[in-house]
Amino acid sequence: MSPVANGRLLFNEVPEGYPVPGKTTVYDESSKIDLEKVALQGGFLVKVLVLSIDPYLRGRMRHVEIATYIAPFAVGEPLANFGVGVVLRSESPAVKSGDHLYGIYPFVQYTVQNDAQAFRVIDNKLDLPLSAYIGVCGMPGETAYYAWKEYASPKRASCTSWVAPSDIADRLFTQGDVVFVSTAAGPVGATVVQLAKADGLKVIASAGSDDKVAFATSIGADVAFNYKTVSTRKILEKEGPINIYWDNVGGETLEAAIEYAGKGARFIECGMISAYNTKTPYGVANLINIIAQEIHIHGFVVSSLRSKYVEEFYSQFVPRVASGDIKYKEHLVRGLENAGEAILDVQSGKNFGKCVVVVAEE
Amino acid sequence: MSPVANGRLLFNEVPEGYPVPGKTTVYDESSKIDLEKVALQGGFLVKVLVLSIDPYLRGRMRHVEIATYIAPFAVGEPLANFGVGVVLRSESPAVKSGDHLYGIYPFVQYTVQNDAQAFRVIDNKLDLPLSAYIGVCGMPGETAYYAWKEYASPKRASCTSWVAPSDIADRLFTQGDVVFVSTAAGPVGATVVQLAKADGLKVIASAGSDDKVAFATSIGADVAFNYKTVSTRKILEKEGPINIYWDNVGGETLEAAIEYAGKGARFIECGMISAYNTKTPYGVANLINIIAQEIHIHGFVVSSLRSKYVEEFYSQFVPRVASGDIKYKEHLVRGLENAGEAILDVQSGKNFGKCVVVVAEE
Repeated sequence: MSPVANGRLLFNEVPEGYPVPGKTTVYDESSKIDLEKVALQGGFLVKVLVLSIDPYLRGRMRHVEIATYIAPFAVGEPLANFGVGVVLRSESPAVKSGDHLYGIYPFVQYTVQNDAQAFRVIDNKLDLPLSAYIGVCGMPGETAYYAWKEYASPKRASCTSWVAPSDIADRLFTQGDVVFVSTAAGPVGATVVQLAKADGLKVIASAGSDDKVAFATSIGADVAFNYKTVSTRKILEKEGPINIYWDNVGGETLEAAIEYAGKGARFIECGMISAYNTKTPYGVANLINIIAQEIHIHGFVVSSLRSKYVEEFYSQFVPRVASGDIKYKEHLVRGLENAGEAILDVQSGKNFGKCVVVVAEE
Repeated sequence: MSPVANGRLLFNEVPEGYPVPGKTTVYDESSKIDLEKVALQGGFLVKVLVLSIDPYLRGRMRHVEIATYIAPFAVGEPLANFGVGVVLRSESPAVKSGDHLYGIYPFVQYTVQNDAQAFRVIDNKLDLPLSAYIGVCGMPGETAYYAWKEYASPKRASCTSWVAPSDIADRLFTQGDVVFVSTAAGPVGATVVQLAKADGLKVIASAGSDDKVAFATSIGADVAFNYKTVSTRKILEKEGPINIYWDNVGGETLEAAIEYAGKGARFIECGMISAYNTKTPYGVANLINIIAQEIHIHGFVVSSLRSKYVEEFYSQFVPRVASGDIKYKEHLVRGLENAGEAILDVQSGKNFGKCVVVVAEE
């Protein structure tokens, strides 16, 4: 069999604002690979099947001088992110041909990898689509699950006396926490909504379209609204104060959450997409409320919490997805050549559900 | 004995910006009190000796519609804050004539109180000046001590091998945390500086005059600077990254601390004096760094931590003050009629050391 084209999505230049397909990234088919003969050198050849498009990727599209928690993409090289691939050939004792591997891949159709430890074999006895393993059962789901466990400290509603007459019972009823979840239709936010409902909390959910709002409601949000047409402040004033805020957006939404935070509120800082594509992020001016309301704000990166929760995640949470207890929604984009557009869609909120690039069928 | 004048500092109107003596507050001597005959109704008559002037008082000078953790001052009524007074007469079994009581007093020369539980008898076997009990041994000292204990999680420098040759020992030496303390010459900040040094940390201290900087150095700060003449960002860039930030100022200083925070840094949000006297607080635009650096921000109010630490504070910390182990500096203002000016001085940073109004000698 002669060499085949190995399509790649390359990082071409650092964007000023939003990443522009064909400019920030370019799809390239000039590279060839001989699938039968390519040297493995003790490693394994993987056919990439699905790749995840996540908001955080924008943070890697930066100049090398700026240091942060994750390395920038190198200009001229493929982007990289979580994906699932199938092993075509292997010289590694740890993986075998036909194995499905979850881990970080370059944005290519075929890749030779040598560190089996960096991947997780997906046995998929639960019969989930492979795409789920980069979404609700992958990094975004891990993000929601780990940080909710670590930082939310949810206080559920309780009733100290079930036998009292109803008028008394009302008074003995302790209200549970109120949680506000931004980007509630995305893979992280939607999972948080469901974890919060499972913990018995009242959930306020914001999303950027009426379809997304309907989805947030369908998965249990008590109050869901389209932040583009309804004032976040008015909703929080009416439905708050909030005890937990899951932040995926930052900026004015964070400012509103601070304004309507209850005493001792926990803020889980997962993302700030409002700041990713601008050189002049919104300045939050009411931080003094952090003191008055004794707010605790926790920034986190999912990789820091992984070792503590990863086995619990796969053994306890993933089966809940397989059973249908936890719902999820996917936005499938077919073809690696369309990944640049998918990246822009995720930054601008055009996707509806977890954005997955289907690079190839198996 | 005929009635005597009972001077009072009244809250006169809500200030727009800084509180103006004679306008925001007025000193009034029209009230009289008969010290021998005034009815106690089971309570006790106190001669107020010292009153504390603290930055947080500005937060009580607001319109009643604005809710926060502490009630606003009532227009036409005396201000109130922590102080020490001596009991002149008592009908309460809990206190006796001659007792010195620490607690919250109205800004008056004499007051009849009825809730002995709201006060703490200062036996003062340690022979500290009474003023110390409203400063380093009072609410400001409690503030520093409680929140440092609760939120700092200091990691001291350590050396895993003392017997290794010096060139190896250097490599085995684990660097301790770096803490940045704002308003480091004030009663809270100066106490934090000393707690941090006692925990073996490197301390960066900012203050608003060269005298204050010299004081911060004298109590152990490793790097002290005048933020009015030196760039906070440049200092933090050179001496950081910081692992702990004690915030008394907010605004641009907080933004700089976020910029130069190390991984997993703890921010202790004690005060934001930069925002107290303006209607347009500074907008902090780099909050995204909270995520990248996994910063934990804790807002707190001292009263919420009191029950957990108060006995430890009096039994363990106050003796360190009496022994001279913990240093402090006071700024004494004589006469209740000068309290309005003292309030303005504390808001604008003109005081040098804990501001105490000496209402009367005993």
